[in-house]
Amino acid sequence: MKFADRINSLKPSAIREIFKSMADPNIISLAGGNPDPESFPIKEMEKISAELFERFPSASLQYGLTEGYIPLREQVETRLQKKFGVNTDGNEVIITSGGQQGIDLTCRVLCNEGDTVICEDPSFIGALNSFRSFGTRLRGVKIDDDGMDMEDLERALQTEKNVKFIYTIPTFQNPTGVCMSLERRKKLLSLAEKYDVVILEDNPYGELRFRGEDIPTLKSLDKNNRVVYCSSFSKIFSPGIRIGFLCGPKEIIAKTVVAKQINDVHSNLFFQMMISKYIEEYDLDAHIESIKNIYRGKCLAMQDAVSRYFPKNIKCTSPDGGFFLWCNLGEGKDSSAFAKELMRNSVAVIPGATFAADETRISDGIRLNYSMPSLANIEKAIKIMGDVLNSDFYN
Amino acid sequence: MKFADRINSLKPSAIREIFKSMADPNIISLAGGNPDPESFPIKEMEKISAELFERFPSASLQYGLTEGYIPLREQVETRLQKKFGVNTDGNEVIITSGGQQGIDLTCRVLCNEGDTVICEDPSFIGALNSFRSFGTRLRGVKIDDDGMDMEDLERALQTEKNVKFIYTIPTFQNPTGVCMSLERRKKLLSLAEKYDVVILEDNPYGELRFRGEDIPTLKSLDKNNRVVYCSSFSKIFSPGIRIGFLCGPKEIIAKTVVAKQINDVHSNLFFQMMISKYIEEYDLDAHIESIKNIYRGKCLAMQDAVSRYFPKNIKCTSPDGGFFLWCNLGEGKDSSAFAKELMRNSVAVIPGATFAADETRISDGIRLNYSMPSLANIEKAIKIMGDVLNSDFYN
Repeated sequence: MKFADRINSLKPSAIREIFKSMADPNIISLAGGNPDPESFPIKEMEKISAELFERFPSASLQYGLTEGYIPLREQVETRLQKKFGVNTDGNEVIITSGGQQGIDLTCRVLCNEGDTVICEDPSFIGALNSFRSFGTRLRGVKIDDDGMDMEDLERALQTEKNVKFIYTIPTFQNPTGVCMSLERRKKLLSLAEKYDVVILEDNPYGELRFRGEDIPTLKSLDKNNRVVYCSSFSKIFSPGIRIGFLCGPKEIIAKTVVAKQINDVHSNLFFQMMISKYIEEYDLDAHIESIKNIYRGKCLAMQDAVSRYFPKNIKCTSPDGGFFLWCNLGEGKDSSAFAKELMRNSVAVIPGATFAADETRISDGIRLNYSMPSLANIEKAIKIMGDVLNSDFYN
Repeated sequence: MKFADRINSLKPSAIREIFKSMADPNIISLAGGNPDPESFPIKEMEKISAELFERFPSASLQYGLTEGYIPLREQVETRLQKKFGVNTDGNEVIITSGGQQGIDLTCRVLCNEGDTVICEDPSFIGALNSFRSFGTRLRGVKIDDDGMDMEDLERALQTEKNVKFIYTIPTFQNPTGVCMSLERRKKLLSLAEKYDVVILEDNPYGELRFRGEDIPTLKSLDKNNRVVYCSSFSKIFSPGIRIGFLCGPKEIIAKTVVAKQINDVHSNLFFQMMISKYIEEYDLDAHIESIKNIYRGKCLAMQDAVSRYFPKNIKCTSPDGGFFLWCNLGEGKDSSAFAKELMRNSVAVIPGATFAADETRISDGIRLNYSMPSLANIEKAIKIMGDVLNSDFYN
């Protein structure tokens, strides 16, 4: 069978493959990116569901508009204005089937084969694989505790040809958990203007800050309407329902609607209406506050365990929100071998190479997820990791 | 803004644009392709929904596998075996976000830019636009009351370069409503074998035969495992939930899973579980029988009205199932002008040019939908059409 070049080179995401091995209940997983199911507003969803079947069965189960359920689009726009200071003049919102579809459609709409996408290195594998599948070239930019390195970014913009957009997760980055500083955000916007490229701001974790002060989104700082803002209800409501959104320049969103029509016609209408009713009848912000408490506690527990069990030379990030901690095992170390050894000890983590813009690069990083495992399993898993790090295998 | 070539040339689907004008309650629409909301099993869905929130809230709202909810995949496979005689050895099922995503992913996985897709002419606009967006060349094949013309198909296979697959809706074709004969189905399969191409069999209406005898699906006649079978629960359950499936050769489905990961991760899990429970606890076949009665009645009503109001020289197809009737206004007539005149008389239909493989072709065909409008509106709309057809405008 001859497949399309675009798909032939792609490997199944390492994360997905590890997900499958996670069916084994004896394995403690710090590998996934699932929210804690305790964070789903189940009782409220159950009530709204009954209401939808009672009052709007035909409307909620029939075909809907590709752009999305109109009241939800308006609510998303209002929230973006009020909570994120986004000026939506000249912008438009489209509801997507999760954040992933928003990322995928943006690339489908903007990039020809051979175009370049600039991204943080490491970055979110789901986005990188989508970009690869459209035949784009990925140029990774170094990242530190304050986010993307602006000097490296400008070098990339100067030297790369046909750069269509810069993909960034500025807040609680996946996989590192770091935040881009305000100063760098402003610099990023001015560079995008100078080199005339679009920014795709991916912000799935932005509402989940459990420590410190919010930093404005790129979209809210954007004076020139060149940011496409992507987010979802996966981490603050439920991921299984696959509801996300894009907010971007009208002409980009108009093309995205055309692309979405031929991709899946529209997103699940019942759950679009469910979220809309939830925002109308309940207090989403209060719900998000309660979720933050879960993740603050889990993050603290993981950091505390790391301080007790890991060798002192191992450097980990200290996230103020989101789902992930990132640890560097030390220069020259290969975290893929370490992840395999850990799996033999029934702990799953994702090695850093998985997130690299250049897949052949060896990485000493590992991503540790604290949102999903229980407090007890966080303690156990970090202890096992500490044992391996202190063992002959590692040293 | 410079967009991707693949998307730049696409126009918003005429169907979608007409959908928008349909918000006007004074317009009677025969333009859409919606199922009758009376056909949704609302009471049963309401019960299962309550049960899911009660018993499986975390499982149904959390991230799921890209391949789909395992029990539903097995149930789909069993139904394909029992109802459609599909031998699933060497095949695999993936759950998709409606039939549209199944079509879109198949092209994404199989076609490079410049490859050729062969299709019936006219055919389903959503599929054609997806194929166009991947930079493929479309070669339309003539169609008559017995489906695709096999001589024209063989000419296409002989002369076209890089043909990747043949896209066909053999049963109750969209837009014409016709069925491919058994003889031609066998011929199609042997031609696919001779010229070594894949067949994408799109069968969203196959279970909705309200007259005559079933004709075997291509997939069930396929001895060489070269058919990818695409269908959905949109027309027999609910379209708004966006749940469909592909059944095809293992290696194609494996690539499709990779493509779906980067497209939307997985389809709405709650409604995958809902359909699975429905099949387990209720009688889907009995439900489908009851739906057929609705569409038999509406189709008969439309055919009867056509016989009373249309000039005798206008030839319409006589579908035994599905959602559509297709009428040819007469050689040299342009149905686009006719559709515009009809809209001025508050009736919406889709002109044939919309469904043409070659978008510049003038068509005398129109597609009439009977699944969605009420019996009263079918009568009214056909009468108005008859008046226009008998008027000076038309003659």
